[in-house]
Amino acid sequence: MSTEGQIIKCKAAVAWEAGKPLSIEDIEVLPPRANEVRIQIAYTGVCHTDAYTLSGKDPEGAFPIILGHEGAGIVESVGEGVTNVKVGDHVVALYTPECKECKFCKSGKTNLCGKIRATQGRGLMPDGTSRFRCKGQDLLHFMGCSTFSQYTVVADISVVAITPEAPMDRTCLLGCGITTGYGAAVVTANVEKGSSVAIFGAGCVGLSVIQGAVKNGAGRIIVVDVNDAKEEWAKKFGATEFVNPTKIGKPIQDYLIEITDGGLDYTFDCTGNVGVMRAALEACHKGWGQSIIIGVAAAGQEISTRPFQLVTGRQWKGCAFGGIKGRSQLPDLVDDYMTGKLKVDEFITHRKTLPEINDAFQVMHSGDCIRCVIDMINL
Amino acid sequence: MSTEGQIIKCKAAVAWEAGKPLSIEDIEVLPPRANEVRIQIAYTGVCHTDAYTLSGKDPEGAFPIILGHEGAGIVESVGEGVTNVKVGDHVVALYTPECKECKFCKSGKTNLCGKIRATQGRGLMPDGTSRFRCKGQDLLHFMGCSTFSQYTVVADISVVAITPEAPMDRTCLLGCGITTGYGAAVVTANVEKGSSVAIFGAGCVGLSVIQGAVKNGAGRIIVVDVNDAKEEWAKKFGATEFVNPTKIGKPIQDYLIEITDGGLDYTFDCTGNVGVMRAALEACHKGWGQSIIIGVAAAGQEISTRPFQLVTGRQWKGCAFGGIKGRSQLPDLVDDYMTGKLKVDEFITHRKTLPEINDAFQVMHSGDCIRCVIDMINL
Repeated sequence: MSTEGQIIKCKAAVAWEAGKPLSIEDIEVLPPRANEVRIQIAYTGVCHTDAYTLSGKDPEGAFPIILGHEGAGIVESVGEGVTNVKVGDHVVALYTPECKECKFCKSGKTNLCGKIRATQGRGLMPDGTSRFRCKGQDLLHFMGCSTFSQYTVVADISVVAITPEAPMDRTCLLGCGITTGYGAAVVTANVEKGSSVAIFGAGCVGLSVIQGAVKNGAGRIIVVDVNDAKEEWAKKFGATEFVNPTKIGKPIQDYLIEITDGGLDYTFDCTGNVGVMRAALEACHKGWGQSIIIGVAAAGQEISTRPFQLVTGRQWKGCAFGGIKGRSQLPDLVDDYMTGKLKVDEFITHRKTLPEINDAFQVMHSGDCIRCVIDMINL
Repeated sequence: MSTEGQIIKCKAAVAWEAGKPLSIEDIEVLPPRANEVRIQIAYTGVCHTDAYTLSGKDPEGAFPIILGHEGAGIVESVGEGVTNVKVGDHVVALYTPECKECKFCKSGKTNLCGKIRATQGRGLMPDGTSRFRCKGQDLLHFMGCSTFSQYTVVADISVVAITPEAPMDRTCLLGCGITTGYGAAVVTANVEKGSSVAIFGAGCVGLSVIQGAVKNGAGRIIVVDVNDAKEEWAKKFGATEFVNPTKIGKPIQDYLIEITDGGLDYTFDCTGNVGVMRAALEACHKGWGQSIIIGVAAAGQEISTRPFQLVTGRQWKGCAFGGIKGRSQLPDLVDDYMTGKLKVDEFITHRKTLPEINDAFQVMHSGDCIRCVIDMINL
C-alpha cells in the first residue's frame, strides 16, 4: 500500500535537549509539500558535527531536533513541482544544497547555495514549518537533512540521485566526511602534481584529503596526528610520511618547514582546533603555500597569525563540503567509488542499528573509530 | 674624470640612532664589487617604512644606517660580471630583487626572490660587508637600496634599467608605493572585470590600488578613509564611492556588506592596522571574496577572525611590492606611465632637497601629503 500523501509513522532518534542521549521515539513524518522530497533513509553516518550540536556547545543549536546529515536512502514520495528525483531513486541527502539559480550557484566560484540558507539555519523547511511531530509537538530539522529518522523530508535542492548499483551503506558517507576532505584537495585547493601536502588530523576528513592529494599526484603527503595508531591508517590511504607533533620537541610548523626545505605547498586543517589552524598556515611555503581550513571550530574561537605570514605570500582559505556542488558533482564521486578510484569501504570501522545510535556517539570519540554506519531499516 | 673604481665622497642622510632626526653627512661610498652596481641617485621618495624603521619600533631595525628604498638614478659604475645594466643606464632600485634563478623566481608564483634575503635583512651587501663609511665606521644598507645617499651600491639583481625618457623624479615612486598598490590589484588579486572592490586607506598605496582596479575594469570602487579630505583624491583616481568609517554608526564591514548586497569581491588593506585588516576580510562576499593585506603592521601585532569567515569561502592573502617582479615587470609600468595609462605625477604633493629631508618626514604625517620627492643632486 502506497504511503504517498500519508503521514508516515516510523522510528527516529530524537534529541530532546542538549547534553542528553538521543531517545528512540515513534514519530510522525508529514508528506512532502511543493518542492520537497520524502526519503526512506537506509543508512546514516554519525559525524562530529552531530555530536557538537548535541553537546549544546553550538550556540545555534536548538531542540528538540532530529540530528544526522550523512545519509543515503530511497525516495518514497515527492511533492508538487519536483523534477530532479522521482519515487524509487537512490539518493544522498545534501546539507549543502544546490539550487542552480541563486547568485552563489551561478557564480561558478562556490558551492554555498543561498536559496534556503535562512530556514535551514533555523531548523525548518523552506516554508518555515517542520515535517516532524512527536508527542504532540514539532521537532526541528537539522542541516536540511535529519537522517537519524527512518523517514525524512528535505527540499528538492537538498538531494541528489545516484546509481542504484552503489551500496547505500557506503554512499551515505559521501554525504559529508569523505566528500569534504576529497573535495578540499581536488576542488578547493586543486593540489598541483608533484607538490607537497600536509594534513593535520587523520580522521575521516583527513584521510579523504589524502585520497584527493593522491588523485592529483601530490609528491609528498605528510600526515600529522597526535594518535600514533593513525600512522597505519594514513599510509593505507597514500600518505608518504607521518608525524606525531607531541614527539618532535619543537612547534610542528618549525619542524615541517625544516623537513620540507621551506614549507608545504598545501596544508589542510581537519581538526577544528584554532591553534592547529595557525600551525597549518605557518607551515606553508613562503610565496605560494596555501592553507585550507576544513575543521569546524568551537563557537567563539578565533584564528590568528602575524599579517607578515600573508604579506610574504601564504594564503588562508577554507571550504564547506569540500567545495563540492552536491547535485552536479556528487554522482562523479560515486562513479569514482564504483570504479575503484575512491576508497569508501575502508572508512567503516563500526556498524550499529538505530536503537544503538548512542553507542555510535561513544565509539566516535575513541581513537580507533573512523566512521560508524547506522542501519536505519533493520533494527 | 671617471669615478669608476674610486671611493666616492658625497652627501647622505644618515640615521645614527632610532628616534633621532637624520643627519646630513659627508660619506664615502666604496666601488661596487662583483655583481654590484653603483648608482648616482637623482630622486628618492620617502615612505612610511623608512619612518617606521627610524622610529625604532622595527625590532629588526639596526643603526647607523642609510635609509630610503624608493629611488631612481643613473648607473655610475658596475662591478665584475654585471650584465643587466651598464654605465649611464637610468635605473630604479628594487627592494624586492629578482635573480631569475632561485626557487622563488623560478616558481612562477611569487615575486619574493630568495637569493640575497639573508644579507639584505641584516643591512649588508651579499658578501656580508657594507659599501658605506662615515666618520671611521661602516654604515648599514637598508632594504638593499639606501636611496637617501647621493651614491649607493646595490646588488645587480636589485636594479632595473628603464627608458631614459621617463623623468626620474617620477619613476623613483615606482620603486615602492605606486607599484605596490597597482600590482596588488592587477597582479596579486587580478581584479575581475565588473567586480566590486573596497580599499581601506587612501594614501599612495591605496590610490594606486584604485588605479589597478580601474585598469582591470572593476565596476564599483569604494574607498574607506577616516580623513574626509581623501574623498577628492580617491575620486580623482577613479573611486566610485567614499566612506568615512567614523561617520556611519556601525562597524565598517557591516556597512559595506549592506550597501553591496553581501560584501565585496575584493578588499585591500593599505593601512597596516590589524583591526582594519580584519574588517577588510569580513567585508568580503561569502563564497569568493578575497582580501589582500598590503599594509605593514607594527611588530608583534596579529590579525584574527573567526575561522567560519574562511570556511564560508573568503580568502585571506597578502603581497609585498604588489607581487610585481621588478626586473621583468617594472619597465611595463614605466611604459604605462609614459603612455598616460598610469598616473604618477599626481602623487607628488611635496618636494624637498636632501638637506631638507627631515621636513619630508614631518609632512608625510600630515594628511595632505601623498608623496614627497627628494631632489638628491641639486642641494
